[in-house]
Amino acid sequence: MDIRVSVINIGNELLLGQTVNTNLSWLGQELAAIGLPITRTIIIKDDETEIREALDSCWQNSEVVISSGGLGPTNDDITKAVIADFFSKVLEFREDVWSSVQTIFQRRGLEVPEINRNQAMVPEDFTAFINRLGTAPGLYYQNGNKKFFALPGVPIELKGLYKDYIKTILQNDFKSQPVTIKTLHTWRISESALAEILPEDIIPPEVQLAWLPQTGRVDLRVYGSDKTKVLVTINKVKQLINQYIWGEDSDTPQSILHNLLPEKGMTLSAAESCTGGLVQKLITDNAGSSAYFKGGMVSYSNEVKISLLGVKDNTLQQFGAVSEETALEMAEGVRKLTDSDWGISTTGIAGPDGGSSEKPVGTVCFGISGKADNYSYRTVFNGDRESIRFKASEYIILLLIEQLRRNL
Amino acid sequence: MDIRVSVINIGNELLLGQTVNTNLSWLGQELAAIGLPITRTIIIKDDETEIREALDSCWQNSEVVISSGGLGPTNDDITKAVIADFFSKVLEFREDVWSSVQTIFQRRGLEVPEINRNQAMVPEDFTAFINRLGTAPGLYYQNGNKKFFALPGVPIELKGLYKDYIKTILQNDFKSQPVTIKTLHTWRISESALAEILPEDIIPPEVQLAWLPQTGRVDLRVYGSDKTKVLVTINKVKQLINQYIWGEDSDTPQSILHNLLPEKGMTLSAAESCTGGLVQKLITDNAGSSAYFKGGMVSYSNEVKISLLGVKDNTLQQFGAVSEETALEMAEGVRKLTDSDWGISTTGIAGPDGGSSEKPVGTVCFGISGKADNYSYRTVFNGDRESIRFKASEYIILLLIEQLRRNL
Repeated sequence: MDIRVSVINIGNELLLGQTVNTNLSWLGQELAAIGLPITRTIIIKDDETEIREALDSCWQNSEVVISSGGLGPTNDDITKAVIADFFSKVLEFREDVWSSVQTIFQRRGLEVPEINRNQAMVPEDFTAFINRLGTAPGLYYQNGNKKFFALPGVPIELKGLYKDYIKTILQNDFKSQPVTIKTLHTWRISESALAEILPEDIIPPEVQLAWLPQTGRVDLRVYGSDKTKVLVTINKVKQLINQYIWGEDSDTPQSILHNLLPEKGMTLSAAESCTGGLVQKLITDNAGSSAYFKGGMVSYSNEVKISLLGVKDNTLQQFGAVSEETALEMAEGVRKLTDSDWGISTTGIAGPDGGSSEKPVGTVCFGISGKADNYSYRTVFNGDRESIRFKASEYIILLLIEQLRRNL
Repeated sequence: MDIRVSVINIGNELLLGQTVNTNLSWLGQELAAIGLPITRTIIIKDDETEIREALDSCWQNSEVVISSGGLGPTNDDITKAVIADFFSKVLEFREDVWSSVQTIFQRRGLEVPEINRNQAMVPEDFTAFINRLGTAPGLYYQNGNKKFFALPGVPIELKGLYKDYIKTILQNDFKSQPVTIKTLHTWRISESALAEILPEDIIPPEVQLAWLPQTGRVDLRVYGSDKTKVLVTINKVKQLINQYIWGEDSDTPQSILHNLLPEKGMTLSAAESCTGGLVQKLITDNAGSSAYFKGGMVSYSNEVKISLLGVKDNTLQQFGAVSEETALEMAEGVRKLTDSDWGISTTGIAGPDGGSSEKPVGTVCFGISGKADNYSYRTVFNGDRESIRFKASEYIILLLIEQLRRNL
């Protein structure tokens, strides 16, 4: 039997668009990984009628219901009262929850605001999960084969409570078949061009294929509960589109770099103009990147390009700041300055202004300087300032990876 | 009468957690701004039964239904067929849509893959909105006072179609009262401590107050359809918590800086260690930041701190890389190197490793170097590597803003 999992996200801020719902994507991944993919999600306001209606429809149709949000100490948080009422349970004071709330404030050297006493009230017959990271406990109620969980909406608390308690309960009680998910990351090809390369009949009925257009590139996902069939399918797909694949599953450009550079015992530095620091931010997302990443420059002004990176005034005059020639001198400059094996650079027009017919907004030039050779590239990205900067930052890392793999 | 707006997000990737639902937060903001806040959102899989059930419940209960996703050219995109079937309409070929699809490919110098002919099929009695940014048109159906819109799930296309067509239709047909939303951004105080300062009776019943814990800080939102009451309330709130407020509404630390520095005719540079480029990325999010931001360094290795920034070997030995002393020398070094009015710096332990009892993970030291004075700060952030880096990046910008405002 398929186990139906419903998620209810409660919070005006989600519907008014002031908060992006990262809890849902995180929970979705976790639940799929243990074979309990989310069937349906309902997002509603902190409103009694709405919460009650959502509880009603989900509790009827699902084996697992998980709610998030509305458990805070302030007045607009009404979830707990509505839950207690929906399940016809009285709220009761729990000593263990109260002492954990007190501990949290003591650790920060603060007095416990009186308002937090509410946090220790729990519906009878519910289990309270102690929250190490906040004042709202998680709530758990079981009735027959149905389970209901209520979690706070603060992402770090929701994640902590799921990992500390809920995951184990679900794994023990539902011996379900995990969904096998394989993702291929491609670049330099469009979704429809990819689709033309892949004949439909290589996907058997038990396996699903999904196209996920990302910022600047397409991900291709193959999944299903029959692991063998998923793996066979993915291998066929790979053979057909191999030249466009740069990574798999949780790979990011910077995580691949994180493995490749130490393997080769090489060091890296970067000089950024239009990406303004984002390339280096992505590289240093990896703990331990200091083993190969020495640092670099954000040479936002021409002045800094000349005085610190040693870009020639003449190059800037003749070819402009956005040119492959300038990119190369930036890459070489930062490599020498930091005594690294590789230097990479970006210089471009992120917009919205500053474009011309010859160099439209989105034009970005890249440089890669190695001890033996230098390479430069130029391309034009679509999108707004933010997406152009992001695409360019991933692109230079992917270009370097391509170079490093070629030299294997 | 309240107009009920339902949103249906279709896409396995949303429930499997492989895509974060940014469309919903964007649409939520746009719809609230024209007085049509979203009432409820349902997120479902690309599955015929699920789509049909969601259409059924939303179309019954709402005046406006907006679906997103599943309109692509590939096989897993079934939304259009299910919509046509649900409304009992036949799909028909539309010349104008077909020629816009052809134009998109021609502009990129590519042949049109045959699969894209499907994109020109539209349910009879539906209006097709031409999509300038992709191959899937938007779909619009009106029946009595009810409106149904179907949009592609690619964010840039969804946004384009909403702005080009849907917004005007909704504004013309529903003369509704926009919701007035005022947001206050605070720092250096917790949600419950803020709640203790604010007496409940300053919020009249027509006005809503919401607490939005953000990464590293709390936002406080006051909203309602009575504009005057919202503004009166916000002023009372401001008076009570003034010392903790750093900005309002769409302010970000970097957008405030973007106004303050040019006002004072001052320039800035940055030297980053633990934040790895993120401070400079945030500053250069603003188009035109080159007017005051000269650039800077990511001095990830000690070697680069010494050789390029001129941090003294002795300072590193005596106080360590993560110290206010090192932060100050970094800030001063980058300010002098780039000949700026202000230099700012970060150096800390972003984790997950590298902490000690004296300097636990999350410890970050900050430096601000001006032409007249230098300042240093030290604090400890909670959270994982990503949130520590983000909090530290916003923090140094807020510290500089505080300094600049003091010197007004």
